[in-house]
Amino acid sequence: MTAEIIAVGTEILLGDIVNTNAQYIARALAGVGIASLRQTVVGDNEERLLEAIDSAYKQSDVIIATGGLGPTADDITKETFAKFFDLPLIEDAHSKELMESYFKGREIAPSNYKQIMMPEGCIVLDNHNGTAPACIIEKDGKIAVILPGPPKEMYPLFEDEVLPYFKRKQSTAIVSKELKLVGIGESSAAEIAGELLNGENPTVAPYAKEGEMLFRITARAEGEEECEKLIEPVKNILYERLGKYIYGEDKITLEAAVMRDIINKGLTVATAESCTGGMVAARLINYPGASEAFADGVVSYSNESKVKFLGVKKETLEKYGAVSEETAREMCLGVAAISNTDIGLSTTGVAGPTGGTPEKPIGLVYIGVAIRGKAFVKRLELKGNRDKIRTTATAKVIQLLREKLKEEYNG
Amino acid sequence: MTAEIIAVGTEILLGDIVNTNAQYIARALAGVGIASLRQTVVGDNEERLLEAIDSAYKQSDVIIATGGLGPTADDITKETFAKFFDLPLIEDAHSKELMESYFKGREIAPSNYKQIMMPEGCIVLDNHNGTAPACIIEKDGKIAVILPGPPKEMYPLFEDEVLPYFKRKQSTAIVSKELKLVGIGESSAAEIAGELLNGENPTVAPYAKEGEMLFRITARAEGEEECEKLIEPVKNILYERLGKYIYGEDKITLEAAVMRDIINKGLTVATAESCTGGMVAARLINYPGASEAFADGVVSYSNESKVKFLGVKKETLEKYGAVSEETAREMCLGVAAISNTDIGLSTTGVAGPTGGTPEKPIGLVYIGVAIRGKAFVKRLELKGNRDKIRTTATAKVIQLLREKLKEEYNG
Repeated sequence: MTAEIIAVGTEILLGDIVNTNAQYIARALAGVGIASLRQTVVGDNEERLLEAIDSAYKQSDVIIATGGLGPTADDITKETFAKFFDLPLIEDAHSKELMESYFKGREIAPSNYKQIMMPEGCIVLDNHNGTAPACIIEKDGKIAVILPGPPKEMYPLFEDEVLPYFKRKQSTAIVSKELKLVGIGESSAAEIAGELLNGENPTVAPYAKEGEMLFRITARAEGEEECEKLIEPVKNILYERLGKYIYGEDKITLEAAVMRDIINKGLTVATAESCTGGMVAARLINYPGASEAFADGVVSYSNESKVKFLGVKKETLEKYGAVSEETAREMCLGVAAISNTDIGLSTTGVAGPTGGTPEKPIGLVYIGVAIRGKAFVKRLELKGNRDKIRTTATAKVIQLLREKLKEEYNG
Repeated sequence: MTAEIIAVGTEILLGDIVNTNAQYIARALAGVGIASLRQTVVGDNEERLLEAIDSAYKQSDVIIATGGLGPTADDITKETFAKFFDLPLIEDAHSKELMESYFKGREIAPSNYKQIMMPEGCIVLDNHNGTAPACIIEKDGKIAVILPGPPKEMYPLFEDEVLPYFKRKQSTAIVSKELKLVGIGESSAAEIAGELLNGENPTVAPYAKEGEMLFRITARAEGEEECEKLIEPVKNILYERLGKYIYGEDKITLEAAVMRDIINKGLTVATAESCTGGMVAARLINYPGASEAFADGVVSYSNESKVKFLGVKKETLEKYGAVSEETAREMCLGVAAISNTDIGLSTTGVAGPTGGTPEKPIGLVYIGVAIRGKAFVKRLELKGNRDKIRTTATAKVIQLLREKLKEEYNG
C-alpha cells in the first residue's frame, strides 16, 4: 500500500509550528509496510484542501490527514473529506456521550457539537485526550484517515487505533523491535553495528534522539512469529556488541527503565534540584509505579533552601559557590539523608541566559548521584538555550544514575 | 506574491528527519509579505518532483526547493528544475573556484563537479558552508529558488541572499500580533470574538494550544506601520471583550507572564507538588528571572514527606486522604509557611493509570493557591492519560494563581 500525508493548518503553513506529525506518521507507516509517496501541508482552505485530497486520491491507496478538527468555523478538514467522498455528516451518538462526559456539566459551546458530526458509514475513533473524535473513511477501495492535529491527541490515536487497523489490512506481517541506547553517539554505535546495517531482512536502522539513540530492527514475513525468528539473532548480536549501552526495548523510556530497576532492587530515591528546577523529579514520576520508590524531591533554587532543606554547609556555598562539585555532592548526599532514601540525585548549574561568568559560564552544570552514602559528581559543559541546558542536564543525571547503579550492583 | 515550498528527500519522506526547513522558510517568507500556499515533500524521484514543480508553478509565483543538490546520482533537484524550465546546465566558473578553494588541495571526487553545473542564466548564490551552490531561476514571470538541504547551509544562504532578493522585489509588508488567552476555550472565545473572525485585513484567527488559546491578528499593507495601524483597533476590541482572559501578547508564555507579575508585585513563591511531581516548579523556573521570586519547591510524593516537609497534619491525611481539598489546602499553606514566601502552590491527585477508586477516580486532582495565608483550592476532574492529566493540572494551578493574583491585587 502507498500513502500520502496531508497536514491541514495555517499555523504550519505560516511556519509557527513544525510538522512533526508527518515525521511520526511516515515512520509509523513504514513500520507496517506502507510507503509514503508525498507529504503535503495546506491551510484551512476548502479549495486547496480539496485539490490536495484529489491529487492524493489519484496517486495513493491511503490518505492520512491531520489537523482542522476543532470546533471553530475555520476547522474544515472533516467537512471537506465528507464533501470529497460525497458522504453526509451525521451526529455520532457515542461521540456525543463522550464529549458530554468530557465537559462534565460545564457548559458546552454549541460549536462543539460540530465535532461529533461524522461522515456517514465511517469508522469513528474515540479521542480520549481531546473533544474531536477521529475517523476512517473506506470508499472506492481508498482509505482516508482523519486525525486531530495536536500530537498529544494524535499519537495515542495512531498507536492504539490506526496502526492496529493497518496491521489487520496488511497481508505480510511486519514486526519492528527497537533497542534503546544511552551513553553512546549514533555514529559510533552505527560503526559498531557495522555490517548489520546492510541487512535486507531484517533491516537495522539507527536513529538519534535527544541524547539517546536507538536501533530499529524490522523484519517482513508471512506471520509475526517468522518475523520474530528473523529478528532474534540480529538482536542478540547487537546485545553482544553494545549491551552495556542498551537500557531497554521498544516503548520503554530511560526514566521508566531506571525506575523499574530501582524498584526491582528494592531501593528508594529522592531528588535535589537547582537549575533543573523539578524536571528530574517530574521525569522519574512520569513512571506510573514511581510511588513505590520515589520519596521526596526538593527544588532548592535559593541558597537558603539548599542549607535549610538539604543541609548543604554555608561554608561550602561561600567557599565554592552554589554551582560547584562540592555543592552538588552535599546536595545529593543531603537529600538522601533527610529523605532517608538509598539514592539521592542533585543538579546545580548556570542555565542562562544571564548569570554566566568566565569561571562559571552558561552551560556549566554539576550533576550528582549518591548511592548508600557514596557520591559521584560529574561536571558538564552544555550548549544551547536555557531550556536545552535544563533538559540535557535532566537526561544526563538519569543516565549517570543508571551507570552508577550498574557499577554498584554489577548490572 | 505567493509561494510553495518543496522539500526533496527520501529521508524526510520516510520520517527519518523532520522538515524543519519548511517552517524556517515559511516564517521568513511571511516576514517579507510572501504567503505560502502549500508545502510539499517528495522523494529523490524525477517523475514525482516534476509533478510537484508543475503543480506549484501553476498555483504560485515562487517555488522554493530544498535538498537534493549533493554530488551523488540520486541528487536530482537542480537537474529536474533545469529540465522543467528547459534550461541547459552549464559549468559555473566562479563556483568552480570556490569549490576548489573549499577542498584546499585535497583531492576532489569527480562527482563534485556535478554540483557546479548550473541552469543557464540563473542567479548563482555562493554557499560558504558547503560545496553545493544555490541558485535562483527567473522565467515566465515565475521565480524558482533552489537551496541545499542541510540547515547549516540553507539558513545562511536564505538569510544573506534569498531574503534580501525578495525584499527588493516586495512592496507589501505583513505583520502579525498574537493575543494569548487562558481560562476560556477556543470555541467560546471564538464566539465572543464573533464578527472579527470574518475580517479580511486584518484577519483574526483562533488557535487552541494545550489548555490555552490565542488569536492571531494579521495585517497586510504598504509598510509595517500601516499594518500596525490596521491591527490596533481590532486588538482593542478583543481586549474589551476578552481582556480578563488575555495574559499576554506574542511570544510570552503563561508562566513568564505570571512570574513577571509576581516579581513586579515584589512577591515570592514556593511549590508543593504531589501528582505533578515537579512540573509546576519546572515551568515557573522556565522563566529566566525566576530566581528573584521562586524560593523553594517540594515534591512531596509520599505521605511522610507531606507531613515532614510541609507540615500537613497526620489526621488530615488519615481522615480525608492525600487526594483531598483539605490536604491541598494544608500543602499550599504549609509550603508558603516553611519557605516563608507570600505564595504557595499545591497539587495532589490521581494521575493513573492505576490507583483510581469510585470515590477518587483517575483524573481527580485538587490544586491549591495560598496568598498571604489565604488559601484557594479547586477540584479538577481531568481526562486523558497520565502525562495529559499531569500537564493539564500544572497549567490549571498556574492559571488559578493568575486568577487569584488578579482578584487579590485587583489586576
